[in-house]
Amino acid sequence: MLKPLGDRVLVEVIEETEQKTAGGLFVPDTAKQKSQRGKVIAVGSGKTLDNGTKVAVEVSVGDTVHFAKYGGTEVTLDGKEYSLFSERDLLAIEG
Amino acid sequence: MLKPLGDRVLVEVIEETEQKTAGGLFVPDTAKQKSQRGKVIAVGSGKTLDNGTKVAVEVSVGDTVHFAKYGGTEVTLDGKEYSLFSERDLLAIEG
Amino acid sequence: MLKPLGDRVLVEVIEETEQKTAGGLFVPDTAKQKSQRGKVIAVGSGKTLDNGTKVAVEVSVGDTVHFAKYGGTEVTLDGKEYSLFSERDLLAIEG
Amino acid sequence: MLKPLGDRVLVEVIEETEQKTAGGLFVPDTAKQKSQRGKVIAVGSGKTLDNGTKVAVEVSVGDTVHFAKYGGTEVTLDGKEYSLFSERDLLAIEG
Amino acid sequence: MLKPLGDRVLVEVIEETEQKTAGGLFVPDTAKQKSQRGKVIAVGSGKTLDNGTKVAVEVSVGDTVHFAKYGGTEVTLDGKEYSLFSERDLLAIEG
Amino acid sequence: MLKPLGDRVLVEVIEETEQKTAGGLFVPDTAKQKSQRGKVIAVGSGKTLDNGTKVAVEVSVGDTVHFAKYGGTEVTLDGKEYSLFSERDLLAIEG
Amino acid sequence: MLKPLGDRVLVEVIEETEQKTAGGLFVPDTAKQKSQRGKVIAVGSGKTLDNGTKVAVEVSVGDTVHFAKYGGTEVTLDGKEYSLFSERDLLAIEG
Repeated sequence: MLKPLGDRVLVEVIEETEQKTAGGLFVPDTAKQKSQRGKVIAVGSGKTLDNGTKVAVEVSVGDTVHFAKYGGTEVTLDGKEYSLFSERDLLAIEG
Repeated sequence: MLKPLGDRVLVEVIEETEQKTAGGLFVPDTAKQKSQRGKVIAVGSGKTLDNGTKVAVEVSVGDTVHFAKYGGTEVTLDGKEYSLFSERDLLAIEG
Repeated sequence: MLKPLGDRVLVEVIEETEQKTAGGLFVPDTAKQKSQRGKVIAVGSGKTLDNGTKVAVEVSVGDTVHFAKYGGTEVTLDGKEYSLFSERDLLAIEG
Repeated sequence: MLKPLGDRVLVEVIEETEQKTAGGLFVPDTAKQKSQRGKVIAVGSGKTLDNGTKVAVEVSVGDTVHFAKYGGTEVTLDGKEYSLFSERDLLAIEG
Repeated sequence: MLKPLGDRVLVEVIEETEQKTAGGLFVPDTAKQKSQRGKVIAVGSGKTLDNGTKVAVEVSVGDTVHFAKYGGTEVTLDGKEYSLFSERDLLAIEG
Repeated sequence: MLKPLGDRVLVEVIEETEQKTAGGLFVPDTAKQKSQRGKVIAVGSGKTLDNGTKVAVEVSVGDTVHFAKYGGTEVTLDGKEYSLFSERDLLAIEG
Repeated sequence: MLKPLGDRVLVEVIEETEQKTAGGLFVPDTAKQKSQRGKVIAVGSGKTLDNGTKVAVEVSVGDTVHFAKYGGTEVTLDGKEYSLFSERDLLAIEG
C-alpha cells in the first residue's frame, strides 16, 4: 500500500469515455477546464499550518472526488495506476 | 449531489446570448474581462486561515452570483453541466 | 442590485474622450500606465485578514475613484455596464 | 483634490532632460534601471498589516522623492498630470 | 555520508525500466506527470515555521518513497548517484 | 542628500575593470551571476515585519558591500551616480 | 574578509572534472539538476522570521556543503573566486 505524505490524497481515477464527432474528433463545448472523478484510496495525515497546528484532510477513504482533469501525479502500484493529489487540488465529494 | 471542498462553490451557469454584428461577428466594446452569472447549488465548509480558524463561505445556496467568464472548473453531474469555483473567484451576489 | 463579495467594489466607469492627432491617431506622451475614473455604486463587507479580523473597505458609495485603465471585470446589470474591482486595485478618491 | 487609498502616494513628477549624443541618440552608460524625481502632493492613510495594525506612510506632503522611472499609474487632475505610487515603489527622500 | 539541510531528504532512486514499443519509442498513455520510487538514506532536521517552531520530517531512513520523476537535485557520493529532495516534493511512503 | 526609504540602502558603486581577451572580447569563466562592490552612503530606517516590529538595516554608512551586478536602481544626485538597493539585495560586507 | 549578510553563506567552490566521451562531448545520464560541492568560508548572522526572531544558519565554517550547480553569486576577493548562497540554496553537509 501507499501512505500519502502531508495533505496528499491517493486516488483511483475513474476513466470516462469522451464524446467524439462522427468523424472522430473530440469537440469541446466550452473553453473551460473540465473535471474528472476518482475514488479515494488513502489520505495523508494533513497539512501543518504556520502556527504549527495540523489540519486533517477533509476527504475520507472511499469518497468519490472530483478534480481538474490531467492534475496530480501518476503512480504505479502492483501494476495498477493511481494518482496522488494535494488536497487543495480536490474540488468536491460526490454523494 | 456534489459537496464542494474547502471554500469551493458549485454553480449552475446561466448561459447568456452574446451580441453579434449583422455579419455574425462578435464585437466587444472594450478590452475588459467580462463577467457571467450563475446560481449557487452547493457551498463548501469554508477556508481554514493560517491561525486555524475556519471562515464560512459568504454566498448561500440559491444566490445568483457573478464571476469572471471562463473561470472555474466544469463538472458533469447526472448529465448536466456545473462549474466549481473558489469563493475568491466569485465577484458579487445579485438581488 | 449587485452586492460585491469580500473587498470587491462595484463601480460605474466614467468614459473620458481620448486625445487624438489630426490624423486620427492616439499619441501617448509617456509609456506609463493611465488611470480612469468611476463612481462607487456598492461595496463589499471587506477583506478577512489571516488573523480572522474583517477590515472594512476604505471607499464609500458615491465616491469618485481612480483606478488603472482596463482593470476590473465588466458586469452587465439591467442593460447597463459596471466594473467590479478588488479594493486594492482602486488608487485614490477624488474630492 | 485626490486622496490616495491605502499606502498610495500622489506625486507630481519632475521632468528631467535626458542627455543625447550629437546625432540625437540617447546613450545609456549602464544596463541599470534609472530613477526619477517627484514632489509628494498627497499620501494615503497607510497599509494594514496582517495583524490588523495600520502603518503610516513614511513620506510627507512636500517631500521630493525618488522612484523607478516609468513606475506608478498616471492620473489627470484638472488638466495636470500626476502619478500614483504604492509607498513600496518609492526609493528615497531628497534633502 | 551526507547530512541533508533543513527539510531536505537524501534518496537513492530505484531505476525502473520504461515500456517501449517494438519500434523502440516510448509511448506514454496519458499526459500526466509520472512518479518514481526511491529509498530514504538520510533526512534533515526539519523545517522552521514562521513562528520559530521546527517541524520534523515525516519520512524516516529506510522508507521507500514516491516523488515526481525528474524532481530533486542529483548528488554524487563515493561514485554513486543520489537525489536530494525538499520534503514537500515527496508524495507518499510505500509499505 | 538622499534618505533611503524602508530597508533601502544608498550605495556608491565601485567600478571594476573587466578582463578582456587580446581580441577584445570579455570571456566569462562560468555561467554564474557576478557580484559588484560599493560603499554605503546612507541607510533607511528598516523593514516593518508583519507583526508591526521595525527591523534595523544590518549594514552601516561607510561599509563596503557586495551585491549582484546590474541590481538596484540608479539615481543621479548633484551630477554623481549612486544605486539604491533593498537590503535583501546586498550579499556581504567586506573587511 | 567578507561577512555574509542575513542568511548568506560564503563558499569556496570545489571544481570537479566533468566526464566526457572519447569524442569530447559531455554526456549527461539524466535530465536532473546536478549538485556541486564547496567549503564554507563564512556565514551570516541568520534569517529574521516574521515574528522578529533570528534563526541561526545551520552550517558552520569549514563544512563541506552541496548545492545546485550554477547557483549563488560569484564574488572575487583578493583575486580568488568565491560564491555567496542563501542558506535555503544549500542542500546538504558532507561528512
